[in-house]
Amino acid sequence: MMASSRANLEFLKRYFARDVFAESCGIELVEASNGTATAVVRIEERHLNGIGIVHGGLLFTLADMAFAAAAHTRGHVSVSVSSTISYIKAGRGKTLLAKAREIARNRRLATYAVDLVDETGEVIAAFQGLAYVKNDPLPDLGE
Amino acid sequence: MMASSRANLEFLKRYFARDVFAESCGIELVEASNGTATAVVRIEERHLNGIGIVHGGLLFTLADMAFAAAAHTRGHVSVSVSSTISYIKAGRGKTLLAKAREIARNRRLATYAVDLVDETGEVIAAFQGLAYVKNDPLPDLGE
Amino acid sequence: MMASSRANLEFLKRYFARDVFAESCGIELVEASNGTATAVVRIEERHLNGIGIVHGGLLFTLADMAFAAAAHTRGHVSVSVSSTISYIKAGRGKTLLAKAREIARNRRLATYAVDLVDETGEVIAAFQGLAYVKNDPLPDLGE
Amino acid sequence: MMASSRANLEFLKRYFARDVFAESCGIELVEASNGTATAVVRIEERHLNGIGIVHGGLLFTLADMAFAAAAHTRGHVSVSVSSTISYIKAGRGKTLLAKAREIARNRRLATYAVDLVDETGEVIAAFQGLAYVKNDPLPDLGE
Repeated sequence: MMASSRANLEFLKRYFARDVFAESCGIELVEASNGTATAVVRIEERHLNGIGIVHGGLLFTLADMAFAAAAHTRGHVSVSVSSTISYIKAGRGKTLLAKAREIARNRRLATYAVDLVDETGEVIAAFQGLAYVKNDPLPDLGE
Repeated sequence: MMASSRANLEFLKRYFARDVFAESCGIELVEASNGTATAVVRIEERHLNGIGIVHGGLLFTLADMAFAAAAHTRGHVSVSVSSTISYIKAGRGKTLLAKAREIARNRRLATYAVDLVDETGEVIAAFQGLAYVKNDPLPDLGE
Repeated sequence: MMASSRANLEFLKRYFARDVFAESCGIELVEASNGTATAVVRIEERHLNGIGIVHGGLLFTLADMAFAAAAHTRGHVSVSVSSTISYIKAGRGKTLLAKAREIARNRRLATYAVDLVDETGEVIAAFQGLAYVKNDPLPDLGE
Repeated sequence: MMASSRANLEFLKRYFARDVFAESCGIELVEASNGTATAVVRIEERHLNGIGIVHGGLLFTLADMAFAAAAHTRGHVSVSVSSTISYIKAGRGKTLLAKAREIARNRRLATYAVDLVDETGEVIAAFQGLAYVKNDPLPDLGE
């Protein structure tokens, strides 16, 4: 599947910079191409839950960014249909990465798996997302 | 199933007040008893995604609070194992509620369904969470 | 949402009678209208697993029939995208029913929840299915 | 994690031979060790659905066998808690394999991913299962 020339990392960083919630969580997109993407967050006090480990909602939001970016590398606007997250071990790292890869994609539906890993490479949670692919190509963001 | 006398709304509000991430998202617990719970958030600009609707990560975090509180009404500490969220329609409301109810619960595992509704009562997303129940009773939070 | 006049129980029974696997499992469609459907199976020795309770694969197949029939009541061909089943208690009943209801439906995607209940009305498993709706109307099955 | 000496392929084949439903579907366990397992089925007319492709219920049952066998390689009895299947492409192969691998496992909960592939190696569906691990070691099956 050909990605449009627009769907590169620079474009996608600008595209997802409009995602105010992810931005306010401190989440940053660092890689995106050909069905894969990586997002990163540096863990702060405000990301923790009541028992002092990284909150599931922050993990979900981090994974969702990688999922969305990976889906958009194919050059079309898509929307999330459903997602599942499974927690594997307590997140205590200083930096967490979400690494998304394409599992399946047809004209309308695309599935991505996202591994959430800490700075030692240990997987702390696994996410899977299903996206619905629209006809709309990625928009022109101007200069 | 008997809830411990400790697992009431006032206790659970104090217990979940320690959840820094949910707190920083503006999420508040407003009801919790006998396997049910409700959490609420007033939608602000910072909760939106790149296309101007409520971010899936905020919806997930809201649902997760109601799920966790409902699970803790039974008087034992529990941890989330996995959760699924399905998006039904774009969230454009001013106030969103997450309403959790118990689907099944045995000594070790408990499943909760959470409806995410806007102020008109319309369901915008459906969440399901599985919790692992520990032996630990709810802690003493002091005065 | 208008169901086509074709999508009634008699039509859907004939349509799903072509489902050889469900048929060979002894599964029968008994109700289908307006986004709901019920399928039934009388439990036999051959439906059990190694520990003498109803096999998860049979429960899944029963739920899948109710899900598919409910989705087809809307008058369009649809295909299953993904499904989740959660086991609540051991199935030991003599007759099991799968009761599907519509959770959400738009032009392309539709979600159904299916309760699997025994003859006492107890829920033994919960199923959720996502269908992709095609443009194709239900076919003409002739006389 | 040490597997008990009992949890080898010969033992597990005898253990799962008691699974009448899988047996009646023609499903066979062909590999199992150290958190992985493979089950196989030769596709027959009776495995198809109404549109002539492999029935989701058969795919699910095939994946469930590989999942259960992989979970039991660790030497303890376990039971399935929940499973999700996502359909990737229509199954039209003559022989289908389910290949399970361990994603995460702690003392009580274990997650397995299962790829369903046809004889050309193409993935037609992806399954994920969560098992609850009991204290019980695998039983003595006698001679």
